[in-house]
Amino acid sequence: MVLEKIHKENDIKNLSPEELTMLADEIRQFLIEKISVTGGHLASNLGVVELTMALHLVFDLPQDKLIWDVGHQAYTHKLLTGRKAGFDELRKYGGMSGFPKRKESECDAFDTGHSSTSISAGLGYVAARELQGGSHSVVSIIGDGSMTGGMAYEALNNASRLKSNFIIVLNDNNMSISENVGGMSQYLNGLRTAQAYTGLKKGVEDTLKKIPGKGDRIICHMKRTKSGIKQLFVPGMFFEDMGITYLGPVDGHDIRKLTRILNEAKRVDHAVLVHVMTKKGKGYGPAEENPSRFHGTGPFDIPSGMSVGKKATDSYTDVFSKVLADIGKQDEKVVAITAAMADGTGLARFAKMFPQRFFDVGIAEEHAMTFAAGLAAGGMKPVFAVYSSFLQRAFDQTIHDVCLQNLPVFIAVDRAGLVGSDGETHQGVFDLSFLLEIPNLTVMSPKNRWEMADMVRFAVDFPYPVALRYPRGEAYEGLKEFRTPILYGKSEVISRESGIAILFIGHMSGLGESVWKAIKEAGYHCSLINARFAKPLDTELIRDLCRDHELIVTIEENVLAGGFGEQVVQYVMQTGEKTRVRTIGISDDYVEHGNVEVLRKEVGLDQETIVAQIKEDYLMIKED
Amino acid sequence: MVLEKIHKENDIKNLSPEELTMLADEIRQFLIEKISVTGGHLASNLGVVELTMALHLVFDLPQDKLIWDVGHQAYTHKLLTGRKAGFDELRKYGGMSGFPKRKESECDAFDTGHSSTSISAGLGYVAARELQGGSHSVVSIIGDGSMTGGMAYEALNNASRLKSNFIIVLNDNNMSISENVGGMSQYLNGLRTAQAYTGLKKGVEDTLKKIPGKGDRIICHMKRTKSGIKQLFVPGMFFEDMGITYLGPVDGHDIRKLTRILNEAKRVDHAVLVHVMTKKGKGYGPAEENPSRFHGTGPFDIPSGMSVGKKATDSYTDVFSKVLADIGKQDEKVVAITAAMADGTGLARFAKMFPQRFFDVGIAEEHAMTFAAGLAAGGMKPVFAVYSSFLQRAFDQTIHDVCLQNLPVFIAVDRAGLVGSDGETHQGVFDLSFLLEIPNLTVMSPKNRWEMADMVRFAVDFPYPVALRYPRGEAYEGLKEFRTPILYGKSEVISRESGIAILFIGHMSGLGESVWKAIKEAGYHCSLINARFAKPLDTELIRDLCRDHELIVTIEENVLAGGFGEQVVQYVMQTGEKTRVRTIGISDDYVEHGNVEVLRKEVGLDQETIVAQIKEDYLMIKED
Repeated sequence: MVLEKIHKENDIKNLSPEELTMLADEIRQFLIEKISVTGGHLASNLGVVELTMALHLVFDLPQDKLIWDVGHQAYTHKLLTGRKAGFDELRKYGGMSGFPKRKESECDAFDTGHSSTSISAGLGYVAARELQGGSHSVVSIIGDGSMTGGMAYEALNNASRLKSNFIIVLNDNNMSISENVGGMSQYLNGLRTAQAYTGLKKGVEDTLKKIPGKGDRIICHMKRTKSGIKQLFVPGMFFEDMGITYLGPVDGHDIRKLTRILNEAKRVDHAVLVHVMTKKGKGYGPAEENPSRFHGTGPFDIPSGMSVGKKATDSYTDVFSKVLADIGKQDEKVVAITAAMADGTGLARFAKMFPQRFFDVGIAEEHAMTFAAGLAAGGMKPVFAVYSSFLQRAFDQTIHDVCLQNLPVFIAVDRAGLVGSDGETHQGVFDLSFLLEIPNLTVMSPKNRWEMADMVRFAVDFPYPVALRYPRGEAYEGLKEFRTPILYGKSEVISRESGIAILFIGHMSGLGESVWKAIKEAGYHCSLINARFAKPLDTELIRDLCRDHELIVTIEENVLAGGFGEQVVQYVMQTGEKTRVRTIGISDDYVEHGNVEVLRKEVGLDQETIVAQIKEDYLMIKED
Repeated sequence: MVLEKIHKENDIKNLSPEELTMLADEIRQFLIEKISVTGGHLASNLGVVELTMALHLVFDLPQDKLIWDVGHQAYTHKLLTGRKAGFDELRKYGGMSGFPKRKESECDAFDTGHSSTSISAGLGYVAARELQGGSHSVVSIIGDGSMTGGMAYEALNNASRLKSNFIIVLNDNNMSISENVGGMSQYLNGLRTAQAYTGLKKGVEDTLKKIPGKGDRIICHMKRTKSGIKQLFVPGMFFEDMGITYLGPVDGHDIRKLTRILNEAKRVDHAVLVHVMTKKGKGYGPAEENPSRFHGTGPFDIPSGMSVGKKATDSYTDVFSKVLADIGKQDEKVVAITAAMADGTGLARFAKMFPQRFFDVGIAEEHAMTFAAGLAAGGMKPVFAVYSSFLQRAFDQTIHDVCLQNLPVFIAVDRAGLVGSDGETHQGVFDLSFLLEIPNLTVMSPKNRWEMADMVRFAVDFPYPVALRYPRGEAYEGLKEFRTPILYGKSEVISRESGIAILFIGHMSGLGESVWKAIKEAGYHCSLINARFAKPLDTELIRDLCRDHELIVTIEENVLAGGFGEQVVQYVMQTGEKTRVRTIGISDDYVEHGNVEVLRKEVGLDQETIVAQIKEDYLMIKED
């Protein structure tokens, strides 16, 4: 095994060309085997095996800085920097992250997770080097999917000013997570086929040269006219026009060619973009055929590529997907928008049924939100389905374009709460706080799969901005017998007693229910309330609870600061009620990767911890 | 006066060519006169007089939709749609907004204020039209400055898919608020001079034709090679490559040419960009010479262009500007970043002194924040100065790139709190809430000019992420005698008594002080505390206050949800203290334009309202 010769960064430099070829195969085998057991990002990682090897051959880590955009393609990088053993505990709590982490290795120059940040971060490193003096290389590796994000363009626009080397590796697989969209994609497609055209240019030049007397003059004139010569002879015009040298395209699975072009890129004295063509899922048939399915995957059977493990019941996303498609049949005004997440958000079903009314805008959450506002202003009923942590990208647009004009945009906030193995960058634990502060916005969350369906229907017809928040994973099937109609701003009383009230929001239903049972079993009186609406608060209900409850306990899967519970606390305090409110949620810290149940226990969102807290609180109240 | 013939939209269509020329002059005179009295945006509006007239000549309002990017250039549009009388109360409370407002006129298709949203909104309108059937035009008018924002690029990337007309008017004055930066600007510069190059292309074509036999074949071949022919013969390649037809450049002060090209644009059956060259400040000498000074201006003397009104004392921005420049002399690691706001943020001084360590990244807040993170990772001490309402654009990057990695980025949050005449889109009233929920972030705010200076020094040397929040306008010069050193997480006790405690944050100092005096004069015991840190909370102090105060009153200029006061409420509630906390701040609504003092009274941030509230609260507490 050549792989066994790799113990740390730069070990790869000791291998022979034959060994390198073997190593690429071994890495692919290793990744397929490991990920088939642990789950993880497969297709993107198989696509960059040779590219990563070439980067490690050409650059010296950790002095040189490699910045991986999104970061879900850094597995080979981890393998080549001494983290082979980590793959057994990949994405598990306490184990190795699926993304680059500065605290994991000196060779990880910058933490990533969200798309389109790498050029900005790279430019920061370059500016720091220019100011401090230094000769290390800075390399940002970005996919063509990430290039649909506006932030990447903002950064490119700033790369033009550089007076020293900065290498942008465009890892072009003609895919983001699913197929790519838009003008830039079209443009890159043009470049991919530019080689044919290179011949043509040569032909023109040769022909011109043959014109007696005049030809040379024309060529010379053209070479003097800066934009003229470029438009004639240079592919990658867009980049060149922005002051960035364009190299490529180059076969991303040919290590020799890759190292050659990267060495060439190192010699450029300003920003240079290396256009690398890769194949997502390369070397594993099922992933090549269906890279989207193998973008992020659970455990699977290697020969067939089929998922292993029990067939899950419907997720909240599945319910959303089905109900929205059903609504689409009856209401032609309903349109759906995704930022490159048609599969993940479940909108693929709607897209298939109503392609005219479906918009995949690329990894462009800012645009998506304002586009939705425009659609609403134009008389449609837009639904923008987006992961909670990516909605952070459209925060200003939610305030400024949707809610200020009070436009009926339905924001379907998927992956709200803890998401698990993707870790810190993907936990959806901030949205309640940043949404609750926005005027005109209604924020709701369902207790189980049936309420999810009801809320989707409610939200589609709601004539003002509304956010519906729901988590990753299976929809709760408990509390089935409670299904009162959704009324604006009204909670659902599941059990009304006195003394202690459990007030949960959304998918904290199961936990709330079990806490409630435990408290009752311990001999206390206890009410159980499904908040349904985080905004507006059901103040009538809270006032009523304050009449005959000494303690209200709120439960939410969100940071406490600015969250649902704090709004309850604030209301109780401002009205001068005497009832104590205990808020249960996530404290002021990032939550790392791991199994969601493990994480919940870790942050104190488990029955035992909460019950103990309630008993302690209630005892104190009674002692007063 | 031709202007007197304009009573409503489309009236302009009845004018003769001579009258149109006169109208342009009259509009300029009108704007200069009115704005010299009320203040407002001048340079941008003078630049688009003819362009706006041409748009109103070619399109039918309100059926056709004009979407003004940023919107500070819509004064002529307001004049042509029957809002002449509004200019006497421009940007005053209850008066006409300085930005497009749907609630102000049917002819305002979309509210704007922040940059780079218009193409997204326009695409929404177009998609709605395509789905519902309709023949109205949709026109987004965007400046070249706004084109540095990534969101505009995300939208352009999506414009390529259109199968019906959508007109993007690029209002190119080679400026944003100050001079433009970056590759795109370079690119547009190239287009501006492309006319010379058009001659060259023609020459090449002619020469090729003359080659016996072969020439025509080559031209023909080139025309068949899609990208080949484009690169040879079409200016505006970047847009063309994205599937957007490019028309122009055209003189933006020639109404006849403008109407012709806009009519041509109407005939395109997909997205088309019309490149219009305008001059910022056109027709008023002082504004042409110094468009940045006349971007947003207060009242001024018309002949000289000099500001009128008393010379204000230093603003918080001035203090920031001076202190940071001073720090820059001693500490070479300090670098400063702005998103196209060098003047507004006061960074122009630093830029002049340390041009190598200053970065104007364009209107690109997302990039700016991650670029700062990269600089910090590379060993520098970056300061990103940004207006509160624009920081909303970099929310995800603050969470994901700065605070997750706990990098020492100093975010200088200018224009925090009510900003006044710019109104709803520019009020900085959300930042405390969205910053307080971010782990690892320290959030502070100064009570007066001296504390501002101390805090800037503290923040520059703080080794973790820190946000320093300060308002627009004069720095408070009261409470001068209190200047204890800034200690991490510690408040400043100005007066320690018992009973009632006033706990203010930042520039609520003056109000807090006056409330405190009034309460004392009314015969109550009262403490006065300067919070200094909104995060971390000074819990030791709050616990101490709870010992002998029945009421704590927090005062902040931020929405209450998730703000400073709520954190105090939450802490008191969770620790089980009995002290009541009254939170004073902005309730759950957008705050419109007007004089800041008027607005404060309107939202209840005034001495009278607060004192009455405190007396009522204290009475209730005593009755209990």
